[in-house]
Amino acid sequence: MSGEFAAVDVIIAKRDGHALSDAQIDWVVDAYTRGVVADEQMSALAMAILLRGMTGAEIARWTAAMIASGERLDLSAVSRPTVDKHSTGGVGDKITLPLTPLVAACGVAVPQLSGRGLGHTGGTLDKLESIPGWRARLSNPEFVAQLRDIGAVICAAGEGLAPADRKLYALRDVTGTVEAIPLIASSIMSKKIAEGTGALVLDVKVGSGAFMKEVGAARELARTMVELGGAHGVRTVALLTDMSTPLGLTIGNAIEVAESVEVLAGGGPADVVELTLALAREMLDVAGVDADPAKTLESGAAMDSWRAMIRAQGGDPDAPLPGAKETEVLRASTDGVVAGLDAYGIGIAAWRLGAGRARKEDPVSAGAGVVLKVRPGDRVRAGDPLLELRTDEPARIPAARADAEAAIRIADAAPEPTPLLIDRIA
Amino acid sequence: MSGEFAAVDVIIAKRDGHALSDAQIDWVVDAYTRGVVADEQMSALAMAILLRGMTGAEIARWTAAMIASGERLDLSAVSRPTVDKHSTGGVGDKITLPLTPLVAACGVAVPQLSGRGLGHTGGTLDKLESIPGWRARLSNPEFVAQLRDIGAVICAAGEGLAPADRKLYALRDVTGTVEAIPLIASSIMSKKIAEGTGALVLDVKVGSGAFMKEVGAARELARTMVELGGAHGVRTVALLTDMSTPLGLTIGNAIEVAESVEVLAGGGPADVVELTLALAREMLDVAGVDADPAKTLESGAAMDSWRAMIRAQGGDPDAPLPGAKETEVLRASTDGVVAGLDAYGIGIAAWRLGAGRARKEDPVSAGAGVVLKVRPGDRVRAGDPLLELRTDEPARIPAARADAEAAIRIADAAPEPTPLLIDRIA
Repeated sequence: MSGEFAAVDVIIAKRDGHALSDAQIDWVVDAYTRGVVADEQMSALAMAILLRGMTGAEIARWTAAMIASGERLDLSAVSRPTVDKHSTGGVGDKITLPLTPLVAACGVAVPQLSGRGLGHTGGTLDKLESIPGWRARLSNPEFVAQLRDIGAVICAAGEGLAPADRKLYALRDVTGTVEAIPLIASSIMSKKIAEGTGALVLDVKVGSGAFMKEVGAARELARTMVELGGAHGVRTVALLTDMSTPLGLTIGNAIEVAESVEVLAGGGPADVVELTLALAREMLDVAGVDADPAKTLESGAAMDSWRAMIRAQGGDPDAPLPGAKETEVLRASTDGVVAGLDAYGIGIAAWRLGAGRARKEDPVSAGAGVVLKVRPGDRVRAGDPLLELRTDEPARIPAARADAEAAIRIADAAPEPTPLLIDRIA
Repeated sequence: MSGEFAAVDVIIAKRDGHALSDAQIDWVVDAYTRGVVADEQMSALAMAILLRGMTGAEIARWTAAMIASGERLDLSAVSRPTVDKHSTGGVGDKITLPLTPLVAACGVAVPQLSGRGLGHTGGTLDKLESIPGWRARLSNPEFVAQLRDIGAVICAAGEGLAPADRKLYALRDVTGTVEAIPLIASSIMSKKIAEGTGALVLDVKVGSGAFMKEVGAARELARTMVELGGAHGVRTVALLTDMSTPLGLTIGNAIEVAESVEVLAGGGPADVVELTLALAREMLDVAGVDADPAKTLESGAAMDSWRAMIRAQGGDPDAPLPGAKETEVLRASTDGVVAGLDAYGIGIAAWRLGAGRARKEDPVSAGAGVVLKVRPGDRVRAGDPLLELRTDEPARIPAARADAEAAIRIADAAPEPTPLLIDRIA
């Protein structure tokens, strides 16, 4: 369908600020997947895209080409409407864990294909793998069967979905070209569209602990993705949510699972509950299902769905979660009010303790992380505990402690409360 | 001396418009040469440099790092002052051939390390290799000895000079990052400075047949290189010269050698003589030698120097030069005046006939090329010959003929004459 091009001509066209043609995009994505366009050519093109941008039409075509590089799942065997959620990632963002079984318990099927974390934001699969026996990898038939029977699946995306994106993402990671909105949007949306979901809710994080630090860029990314979803027949809504402070009181793996189970049991931190319900409402709305997630949560049906989901993937929902060998408590040095709890700094502290990975091939520690004892606005006295650092390797504590200390600001007055929900793009 | 960096941080710094530190530049050039920074990382950095630019200080440091990647020749055994010339390349640009022996005959040593052509502009070595027996490759001791004894050397640059540049140039060629002034300037100047010349004259070409199409960009490149030379103790002057029309009447390999010999014999096209003398005067001036190159040319001393230089490298200056199997004459279809003779179009025609190469590993044809029978301003009648196409492969003629026809414009009135010398930057 697409003609042959010289890779260098495609790179130069974008470098000089021109829009790429449909045929150029189809060719370059396919040729890169086949190894005809070399890594050093694609990285130069990615840098040119980052600095020159892409039109909406180019992004749509690029996304379609990435989808076409692999298989597209067929969820027609699932009789219920399907809806997925994607978060751009944040510190303490465990929302997928309570949200998936909650929405499934409301009568919708949630085909959640997740990733592992790289850098300070841990991945959903890393968190769930702290549950004894649980396995992330399902075959396509297993995935569809679990979606049909239980309605809730969180598992690893198969190799067959958007292989162009897998190759390109690994390249962007080492070439300083991650932060290109056209490439972020097409990466996320190509996988979600190929996964076969009928509708999608995006949680685009904004703030120090997020990929997008500025609300303007986050809004642009959200709009781009909502348009891409629409263009491919996937009803898509995006919420812009605050990530200047960690979500909930836990940042790690097993401790985030435990906090998610608290939410499913009707407790848990207010912000985690608020965001879980807000996203659940959007998912049900976009799926066209009339249900009240707060009532479903209260009824215990979401917890039943969680247990069935964990069991279906070999996990024991009743097994004790792994702990950490060492715990160190960080205490307030003065009286005052918690004025700031910087998500980025806390995220780095958790990463240093072993909760995240520096390289793809590194393992994560199930028990490591940070447990917050205060939230912004809380009054403290000198000596009160502010947070706990947990790790299996005591040598990791000093550096993590320094980051955590720098992330907490104690002042005389309470800060202006930051709203969790910033905007909605539909 | 330089610390360790993460390649991705260096790329991101430039991507975001920051100046790189000396330590970052030293590290990234060295690490790339050693293979620690991967090709796909360097190409992303090169694209960021192309689109974001570099300060004068960054370019100077980058050049120094490229020089430091290899050896620096020691020309102290040469008692005469040394001065080299570099042209950014153009169609029919054979000036190095008569210029090197001419300047040597004036009492200066010319250490001319040249390259092969890629694309439509043939390389000086390709042209000289049409002389039976002549060899391009000299060892460093042979190079220094010939420079000392004859004063004129044109040979291939050894592998030891600026290996970082060799690797980077090959990468830029396939990644759309050739056209970055900081990278062009540092590439040219690192090799010339490592070669050990005491002074340097640059011929920066402007026009359709040159790398730089616009006088503004050419002036910026010239200024950058003149400053770089000065910063490294190499007195450097640049001429900006016109490349909208081919130089002389021949574009090819053996035919350019023949035209150069005509100049050395006291004849040759006026523009080739004018530019040869202008560059010779600049070279003598920058070397601090008081001599009149016009008189030296007239005396036959330059021809003697040429013959000695060719013989020293195994060539026979009296051997007949190779011809081409096929010649086709292009004739005027109407009466009029030659109003335009586009350098780029004529260069492409010569390339199609076999005078240039498409890939580094391709051979060139010694006898192929274009011989002009007219120059802009010449009056012609329908049927008069305009140019000859020469090739060993008749199948190459139709496409070359189409390019040549499109490159010649016949009009009613004579064009405004274009000055050959546009500017001088010192």
